[in-house]
Amino acid sequence: MAPTSISIIGSTGSIGRSTLAVVDRYPERLRVVGLATHQNVERLVEQVQTYRPEMVGICDDSRAGQLRASTSDETSHVVGESALIDVASFPDAETVVIAVVGFAGVRPTLAAIDAGHNVALANKETLITAGEIVMARARQRGVSLAPIDSEHSAIWQCLRAGERGEVRRIILTASGGPFRTLPLDQLDDITPEQALAHPTWNMGSRITIDSATMMNKGFEIIEAARLFDLESDQIDVVIHPQSLVHSMVEFRDGSIIAQLGATDMTLPIAYALFAPDRPPAAEGMPILDVTQMGQLTFEPPDPDRFPALALARRALEDGGTAPVVLNAADEVAVAAFLDGRLRFPEIARTVAEVLDQHTVVKQPTLEDIEAADRWAREIVNHHVANPYTNSGVT
Amino acid sequence: MAPTSISIIGSTGSIGRSTLAVVDRYPERLRVVGLATHQNVERLVEQVQTYRPEMVGICDDSRAGQLRASTSDETSHVVGESALIDVASFPDAETVVIAVVGFAGVRPTLAAIDAGHNVALANKETLITAGEIVMARARQRGVSLAPIDSEHSAIWQCLRAGERGEVRRIILTASGGPFRTLPLDQLDDITPEQALAHPTWNMGSRITIDSATMMNKGFEIIEAARLFDLESDQIDVVIHPQSLVHSMVEFRDGSIIAQLGATDMTLPIAYALFAPDRPPAAEGMPILDVTQMGQLTFEPPDPDRFPALALARRALEDGGTAPVVLNAADEVAVAAFLDGRLRFPEIARTVAEVLDQHTVVKQPTLEDIEAADRWAREIVNHHVANPYTNSGVT
Repeated sequence: MAPTSISIIGSTGSIGRSTLAVVDRYPERLRVVGLATHQNVERLVEQVQTYRPEMVGICDDSRAGQLRASTSDETSHVVGESALIDVASFPDAETVVIAVVGFAGVRPTLAAIDAGHNVALANKETLITAGEIVMARARQRGVSLAPIDSEHSAIWQCLRAGERGEVRRIILTASGGPFRTLPLDQLDDITPEQALAHPTWNMGSRITIDSATMMNKGFEIIEAARLFDLESDQIDVVIHPQSLVHSMVEFRDGSIIAQLGATDMTLPIAYALFAPDRPPAAEGMPILDVTQMGQLTFEPPDPDRFPALALARRALEDGGTAPVVLNAADEVAVAAFLDGRLRFPEIARTVAEVLDQHTVVKQPTLEDIEAADRWAREIVNHHVANPYTNSGVT
Repeated sequence: MAPTSISIIGSTGSIGRSTLAVVDRYPERLRVVGLATHQNVERLVEQVQTYRPEMVGICDDSRAGQLRASTSDETSHVVGESALIDVASFPDAETVVIAVVGFAGVRPTLAAIDAGHNVALANKETLITAGEIVMARARQRGVSLAPIDSEHSAIWQCLRAGERGEVRRIILTASGGPFRTLPLDQLDDITPEQALAHPTWNMGSRITIDSATMMNKGFEIIEAARLFDLESDQIDVVIHPQSLVHSMVEFRDGSIIAQLGATDMTLPIAYALFAPDRPPAAEGMPILDVTQMGQLTFEPPDPDRFPALALARRALEDGGTAPVVLNAADEVAVAAFLDGRLRFPEIARTVAEVLDQHTVVKQPTLEDIEAADRWAREIVNHHVANPYTNSGVT
């Protein structure tokens, strides 16, 4: 079997490096043809020297010289704002891994789809902000869109046990974050330091805070709705602090199928790249021993403690640009919390306020989406800078 | 869609009645064409009047008159020793549900297969004692063999999430029975009354004791090996007292797929009858709400507490007539325990002793199997009647 050619957009970040760890474990099954990143030129050069891709890209112009000087002539280079898009559409790839964080993932994803590549998607914003466009484009182009994060990978795997029309609901598991059991009246006093101490996964700052507010799970509700063509009321959330059951599907006959595994991103990345095949776990891959896993707990999330979940459902039901605003407002509000400019419960309150003010554009274009994104960021920045002029944000 | 025609062998017992409850819930999908039982003529007559099968059978000659007098001429009758077999081979059925308990299930299963019917199998002894013959015959005849008990149904469902060659191991869940946490030195003092108080499932006496010794899980290891063509070391057992996870499959990529559901036999029966379809749960069917299920625990079984597991593995590995002897010796030993003639830990010790004495016949015929069954029962009865003449049974 010839190896699958892959390009990695965002190769120097956490998911990008985990993807390369998967390549290391399956050297006969995967070949890296393209690598791209925003600005971490040192790590990119190392990767180019190790994996010898045909094309490499970096967004930061000022690093272009360093990149060229350190890599051989065999690799062609793209530099500047469109570098991620250029590598994503590079024709020699069969699968493009979208591993960049943030809104910057949307256009490379669409470029990969338009070039006829299968996409393995780790970028949340793509489905949250432009999910309808992306899914329609992938269907039209006949390419697959494989989720990389553990929850949606779990759902995708569990769905194999039945037909799509037989699904009653899916159940996303959530760690519940570090404040799951904190008395409600102490939420106001949470410091950024406390919020950044997440028990199970090692994650970036924003996603750690989004995990503490459960906004990340709200985003996952929206992503699941897009990926699997489900309504909000077909997607439930259960708090499962051990994070070993990655999610579940309830079929209409009453049978529930769950996926479990070690909490390691290389497992869902490998599944996204090889599905429906399951090649043997390579040496050193972590394996969960279910006979030794002890106690698993499950509880419904408290809506008073986690208002972000209802906000995400509201954005999903409103549709159009509402999820764009949800995402952008949350990102700025989280940054403000980390800077000490908002208290912890004000993150969700701010997002709610911005959603209230937003006039939803239905069936938005990419330009509408980008405009809504900018608008929401400005509104939150204004809220944060003028906290006493907005009745909704106290 | 035309309804599926089914015959039920053992229709008046627990699984037989649950199967008819499934028929009641899906009247447009299932039609009863045959019913058979050993001797409960009152209930059989009720069932015939309700479901109007084409053929009905009863083993007990003395009830034949009562059966004929109470049912209409539309239904043909078979009576006597071969009644179960005659109804199992009745040509108008598409699927035959083998719901009888005990060794008596083996020949009707083979008769159904030979008649070209699909089989939904609740009878454990069929696979334990004649599994190799039955599986080979079903393959040869091109009929399906659907497991009805919740563990194997779970495995069968989880296997849909991958290819057979991708399975690393399966993990059968076990309640652990009522003596999971009893101090080991108190096992000697367990009374039949204590052993019959099982926490989760409502079961017959033998299976309740087999559940307390975990011999039932040993039998399930053998059944799983036959059904899914696995070796002993590919089948693990984990104690899960809540009995909500019905079993799991670990694929070679490290992904584990589990099936959960309410503890109600109508769910696996419906799956066995309709698979791979999953028709909607009918009104009144119990549904597990995983967001409310609280705490699930998992622990490996203690081999000192549950020696039956190792005995079952040994019988599986020895093959041939060894599992026949395991089953027969256990049945008689359990009866002796219930009569107060053996102490609880002596059940497994007796079975071990009989296995030690047995000369395995490889690739046995049905006659070899029946001979080994009779032999083992005689040996145990002799042990129990003469407890001080056997060094191995104290």
